Amino acid sequence: MYEVEVKVRADHEAVRDRLNELGARALGTVTQEDFYYDAPHRDFAKTDEALRIRQEAGEDETVEVVTYKGPLVEEESKTRKEHETVVGDSETVDALLSALGFEATETVHKERERYELDGYVVTLDSVTGLGEFVEVEAAAKADDVESVREGAFDVLVDLNLDPNEQVRTSYLGLLLEDTRE
Amino acid sequence: MYEVEVKVRADHEAVRDRLNELGARALGTVTQEDFYYDAPHRDFAKTDEALRIRQEAGEDETVEVVTYKGPLVEEESKTRKEHETVVGDSETVDALLSALGFEATETVHKERERYELDGYVVTLDSVTGLGEFVEVEAAAKADDVESVREGAFDVLVDLNLDPNEQVRTSYLGLLLEDTRE
Repeated sequence: MYEVEVKVRADHEAVRDRLNELGARALGTVTQEDFYYDAPHRDFAKTDEALRIRQEAGEDETVEVVTYKGPLVEEESKTRKEHETVVGDSETVDALLSALGFEATETVHKERERYELDGYVVTLDSVTGLGEFVEVEAAAKADDVESVREGAFDVLVDLNLDPNEQVRTSYLGLLLEDTRE
Repeated sequence: MYEVEVKVRADHEAVRDRLNELGARALGTVTQEDFYYDAPHRDFAKTDEALRIRQEAGEDETVEVVTYKGPLVEEESKTRKEHETVVGDSETVDALLSALGFEATETVHKERERYELDGYVVTLDSVTGLGEFVEVEAAAKADDVESVREGAFDVLVDLNLDPNEQVRTSYLGLLLEDTRE
């Protein structure tokens, strides 16, 4: 499966009102702490890959997940091959990765308020150090990437947002740009 | 924590009788399918490390675990630094490791019948292609490795087995030796 996602910078208050008008279903709010790893044998910045441990705290429980993201396969919608699974103990995964020579070098912290609308997940992200964003995403099979991407653009338009203002850089990338400026 | 483990080749029937005489507690039987990975940036055979995905099927459920084993820190008892955690989906971990250049090259299949005796886990292993073994193991803090190892030898003696016949090569190593002969 591929992950199709488009995001724009947007003030949350207006988008939240519009989601309510459209009858979007609130899915709750979570806090995510992401740890991004460097590899000992590849420069992920050059290969456009990412390896991440995520600690996600919801209202009832904390979920820990490890994710590999491959290089972009579709530039327009930032579509990547993704391998993601829950792990029992993320600190052990960190120790395992460290022993193999992988190193956690960057952290991204955000609050995510999620809604479901027209088969898409709409997320209102508040990212520490970056501000407010709205992300529209869905999973797609290889054949459906294009149509799922167009559907995501339609959702943005419904929310009075402009698909042309799409931010293609990841939060990690935006934070690194800020650091390097 | 360190894993202290000693194993010998032994006929299971006599050991099982002796475990019953000593009042060992039966912990059940599981089947383990182990997949060992090669690394893209290190020769684990030379660095004496291992990266493994284990699928363990018990009577009620299947547990999937990922494990890193570091080089020997104590030769006598085969003590290694170990990082191990449950994962939600081992096929996804396999896909993630493959994307990073790790490759599953060897498989070890065994049935394990476990008992608890004097604070140790005694395991009767039937390894496909290798035969029957008995393993005695316990976790130890760095300071306790030596005394825990001596305790494991005492357990072997109680089972009418000879600590001097200890097999220090892993099942993986024994299978590789067979392949290369």
